[in-house]
Amino acid sequence: MESQDLAHMCGMSVAIEVVGGKWKLHIMWVLGDGPQRFGQIRRMLDGVSEKVLTEQLRQMEADGVVHREFFPEIPPRVEYSLTALGEDLKVALKSLEDWGEKRRAELLAEAAPA
Amino acid sequence: MESQDLAHMCGMSVAIEVVGGKWKLHIMWVLGDGPQRFGQIRRMLDGVSEKVLTEQLRQMEADGVVHREFFPEIPPRVEYSLTALGEDLKVALKSLEDWGEKRRAELLAEAAPA
Repeated sequence: MESQDLAHMCGMSVAIEVVGGKWKLHIMWVLGDGPQRFGQIRRMLDGVSEKVLTEQLRQMEADGVVHREFFPEIPPRVEYSLTALGEDLKVALKSLEDWGEKRRAELLAEAAPA
Repeated sequence: MESQDLAHMCGMSVAIEVVGGKWKLHIMWVLGDGPQRFGQIRRMLDGVSEKVLTEQLRQMEADGVVHREFFPEIPPRVEYSLTALGEDLKVALKSLEDWGEKRRAELLAEAAPA
């Protein structure tokens, strides 16, 4: 985010910058369970390319919600986790998750044979 | 959403299906202020193509959060608005908006000359 734009943005625009990308809500949800390796994240986000996932994670790192940790082991290991700011964001997404849970129950009830 | 998938989904997956598209949080935000015509929405979402916006609105209509109203005037007018379910979703997005507002204030403070 460019700071000169910030003065003209509202809260939702800032939030959209951070989680509005195609896979970012998915990534928040996966990392919400704890640190994950790149391959694990990719397996959980069925259909994302390596290039796109790398890009999305880098943007989330730049936005301060994701932390990337490199472990110089053999073979080297890279883990991604939520920062304190990311944990805050996770809490803010809880009501969205609750809405989805309610909606899921409704849709299941509609789909059930009468 | 296919009902056979629903049983295996969690609340966040359902929410991601509904608002996880590239422009869907933007659309929620624009329609949160009241009904809007297609052209108005498009102008507010700087950079979205007509094709993509149409597609995103259709998906949101199918997911039950957006209502499309056709007015047979001359020239014909089409307005989009949030359904009751969409209004519910807007409320659920409030904490995300608050997070963004807090983050915006932090970033502005960091960018301010010392």
